[in-house]
Amino acid sequence: MSQKRNIIVGQSGGPTSVINSSLAGVYKTAKERGFHKVYGMLHGIQGFLDEKYVDLSTQIHTNMDIEVLKRTPSAFLGSCRFKLPEIHENPEIYEKIFQILDKLEIEVFIYIGGNDSMDTIKKLSDYAIVKGHSQKFLGVPKTIDNDLALTDHTPGYGSAAKYIATSTKEIIRDALGLSYNKENITIMEIMGRNAGWLTAASALAKTEECEGPDLIYLPEIPFDIDKFLKTVQDLMKKKENIVIAVSEGIKLADGRYVCELSGGADYVDAFGHKQLQGTATYLANFLGAQIGCKTRAVEFSTLQRCASHMASRTDINEAFMVGGAAVKAADEGDTGKMVVIDRVSDDPYQSAAGIYDVHRIANNEKLVPREWVNKEGNNMTEDFINYVKPLIQGDFQPFMVNGLPEHLVLNL
Amino acid sequence: MSQKRNIIVGQSGGPTSVINSSLAGVYKTAKERGFHKVYGMLHGIQGFLDEKYVDLSTQIHTNMDIEVLKRTPSAFLGSCRFKLPEIHENPEIYEKIFQILDKLEIEVFIYIGGNDSMDTIKKLSDYAIVKGHSQKFLGVPKTIDNDLALTDHTPGYGSAAKYIATSTKEIIRDALGLSYNKENITIMEIMGRNAGWLTAASALAKTEECEGPDLIYLPEIPFDIDKFLKTVQDLMKKKENIVIAVSEGIKLADGRYVCELSGGADYVDAFGHKQLQGTATYLANFLGAQIGCKTRAVEFSTLQRCASHMASRTDINEAFMVGGAAVKAADEGDTGKMVVIDRVSDDPYQSAAGIYDVHRIANNEKLVPREWVNKEGNNMTEDFINYVKPLIQGDFQPFMVNGLPEHLVLNL
Repeated sequence: MSQKRNIIVGQSGGPTSVINSSLAGVYKTAKERGFHKVYGMLHGIQGFLDEKYVDLSTQIHTNMDIEVLKRTPSAFLGSCRFKLPEIHENPEIYEKIFQILDKLEIEVFIYIGGNDSMDTIKKLSDYAIVKGHSQKFLGVPKTIDNDLALTDHTPGYGSAAKYIATSTKEIIRDALGLSYNKENITIMEIMGRNAGWLTAASALAKTEECEGPDLIYLPEIPFDIDKFLKTVQDLMKKKENIVIAVSEGIKLADGRYVCELSGGADYVDAFGHKQLQGTATYLANFLGAQIGCKTRAVEFSTLQRCASHMASRTDINEAFMVGGAAVKAADEGDTGKMVVIDRVSDDPYQSAAGIYDVHRIANNEKLVPREWVNKEGNNMTEDFINYVKPLIQGDFQPFMVNGLPEHLVLNL
Repeated sequence: MSQKRNIIVGQSGGPTSVINSSLAGVYKTAKERGFHKVYGMLHGIQGFLDEKYVDLSTQIHTNMDIEVLKRTPSAFLGSCRFKLPEIHENPEIYEKIFQILDKLEIEVFIYIGGNDSMDTIKKLSDYAIVKGHSQKFLGVPKTIDNDLALTDHTPGYGSAAKYIATSTKEIIRDALGLSYNKENITIMEIMGRNAGWLTAASALAKTEECEGPDLIYLPEIPFDIDKFLKTVQDLMKKKENIVIAVSEGIKLADGRYVCELSGGADYVDAFGHKQLQGTATYLANFLGAQIGCKTRAVEFSTLQRCASHMASRTDINEAFMVGGAAVKAADEGDTGKMVVIDRVSDDPYQSAAGIYDVHRIANNEKLVPREWVNKEGNNMTEDFINYVKPLIQGDFQPFMVNGLPEHLVLNL
C-alpha cells in the first residue's frame, strides 16, 4: 500500500437530486478506509486545472452534515462541462493534471458524472498506465437521463422519475377538477433529448385512483403529427379531459425537432445544442387551433433535476452506495472502471454495486427499448413499469428549517 | 332550529393544494353539529344547476379518508368558473336554485372559492332575504393568489408560497452548481396576473445558506425594460450567477404585458383573458441577446397550485378551520358572510377565524402594498417576509403508496 493516502473527488455534467449523496458516500467510505485527506475539486476537472479544490474536512464536520449533504440538490462542489482533449492532441494538459495530483499526494481520483465524465476517467487512467503513474481513476455514474450503458439504471433517475410521476398525478387531478362539459387538453413537456426514460416515468402516475397520462411520446419513436391529431380526436370521443406527456426531444420522421415547427428563430446554446424548449407549447397551440378546445402546456423544466424535496430513498441510498463502492474498488487496486448498479432481484427489489471497464461505457447512449413502448408507440408497457417502479420507492424527507428544506453549501 | 338539517357545499374557481382541506373541515364540522346529510355540488353552482350533487357520506367513510382528502390537491368535487347573472337579469335561474335547495331540504349552503364565488354567496343570500327563504349562505375563502380583501391571507397561498420558495432554493442551487467562470441568468416565471403575492414569496428563499432571488418583479409596479437591463448589467459586475423572479403579469408603463412584446399572436382564452405565458422566455431571450450570456427560463406553471406534496401545515390547518367556521356561523344564523383569517399574533404566530359581510369583500382585489417592495421596486422588504414567513411553517407529508402521494377521488 502506497504512503500517499489522499483522495480527490469531483462532480461533472448536469446536476441531479442525488449527486451529493454519491459525494457523501465517497467521503464517508474514504474516511472509514483510512484515507488521510479527502479533497473535492471545485467545478470538476476544469476547476482542478486551475488548482481549485477544497479539503472536504473543512466542509463536512459531523454525521449530520453528511445527512444534509445527501438532501442537497445540484453539485455541492460545482460542476463543469469540460471534455479532455485526446492525449496526443494536448499532452501538456495531462502533465499538468498529474503534477497537481502528485503535489497533493493523490492516490485515488473519483469522478461523479455521466458519459463525458466517464470519458475523462478513461483518458486519465489510460495516461496513467502508459506513463507509469500509480493513481487509480474510478467513475461514479450520475444522470437523471438514465442513458448510461451497462448499469441497470443511473443514480438520479429514480428521484427525477418520482418527481415527474408525483407532479403528473397532481396535474391530472388539477385538470379533472377544472373541466365540466368542456374539453380540456394538457401537454406536459419532460426532459430527454434522445432518450425517453424521464418522459416514460410519467406512466407511473397510473395508479389505483389515477388514470395516468393518456398518451406518452418518446424521442425514440418518430413523431407523426397527423396521426397524433387523429389519436387525440378519437380519444376525445371517449373522454373530455386529456393529459399527454411528451419528451422535449420528440422528432419528426425527417429528423426535425417538433419544437422547431413553431417557426421561431433556432436558438443554439454555447455547446452547439439546439434549445428544445417549446415542444408542449407548440403542440398545445396546434391542438387548440385544430380542435378548438382549451389546451395548456406545462414544462417540468429544471425542477426535474433538482427537486430533492421529492427524492427517492432507493435512489439516495444507491447513489451513496456507488460512491462508497468506487472508493473501495480503487483502494483495492482497480482503475479505469466505473461502478454500476446491478439489479440482483426484482421482488423484493435488491441491487448491488458492480464494476465495469470504463472503455465499455464511455460515449454510449442507452435508449428505451422498443418493446417497453406499446404497439401504437404512445404509451408504456407493464414491463417498463416493473422496471422503474422499484426505483421510486421510499421517501427521504428534507430537513426542514423555518418551513424550507435545508441544504449544505460550500463555505470557502 | 329548523327541521331540515341538510347542508350543501361546493368548490369554485382555480384549484389550490388545500381547497379540499376546507371541504374536509365543512364535512367534519357539519357531522359534529348534527347535520343530517352533507351534500357536495359537483362542479360548483354550474353542476348544481344541472342537479349534479353527491351525498358526501358515500365518499368519505373514515377519519383516514378525511386525512387523505386534506392531502388531495385540486377540487375534489370539481370546480367551475360560473358567475351568476344579476337577480333582475335572470330571476328564473334563482328560482331554479331555490327549488333544488328546497327539494334537498338544504339549510346551509357553503361555497369555497375566490372573488367570483363570494359574488355568488352575495347574490344568493340577497335573493333569499328578499324572497323570504330561510337558507343560510356562507363563503369560505380560497385562492393561491392571496388577493381577497379583509382576510389576512387566503387559504392556498401559504402552500403555494412554500412550493415556490422551495423550488426557488433548489433552482438557485442548480444554477450555482453549473456556472464556473461563465455568466448565467435564470428567470423564473411565477403566477400572478395583477397581484404579485406569489412572485413575492420567492423572497423566502433567502435563508442562512441561500442568497434568494437577486431581483423580484411584481405586476403592481410598472416594468421598465431599459432599467431592467441596466440593473442586470450592474449586478453582473458583482456576481456571475443571477436568478430573477418575475410575475407572469408584469406590464410596461403603457399597460402592455411584457409577454406581448414577443410579437407572437395574442392568444385569448374562453374567458377573454389574454394568455400570459412566455414572460420569462421573452426576458431570457432579451437578456441573452443584449448581454450575450447563457440564460434560461423556468415557468413554475400549474404545479404552483396543485403541488400538495409540499403543502404548509399552517395552511392546511387554517383551510380546515375556515371550512368548519363557516358551518358553525351558518348554524348559528349567519348568512351572506365570508369567513376570514385574522392574524391574532405575529410571534408566536396565531390566527383565528373571523367573519365579514360578503358585500364588503366580493369583487375587490387586494394587491401587494407598495411599502413591502423595496425603493427600487425590484425586491421585497423585511416587513413582507415577516408577513409571509408564518404561512409556510410546518410540513404536511402526503401519505405515500408505492412511492407516490395518495389522493382521495370521487367514486360516482
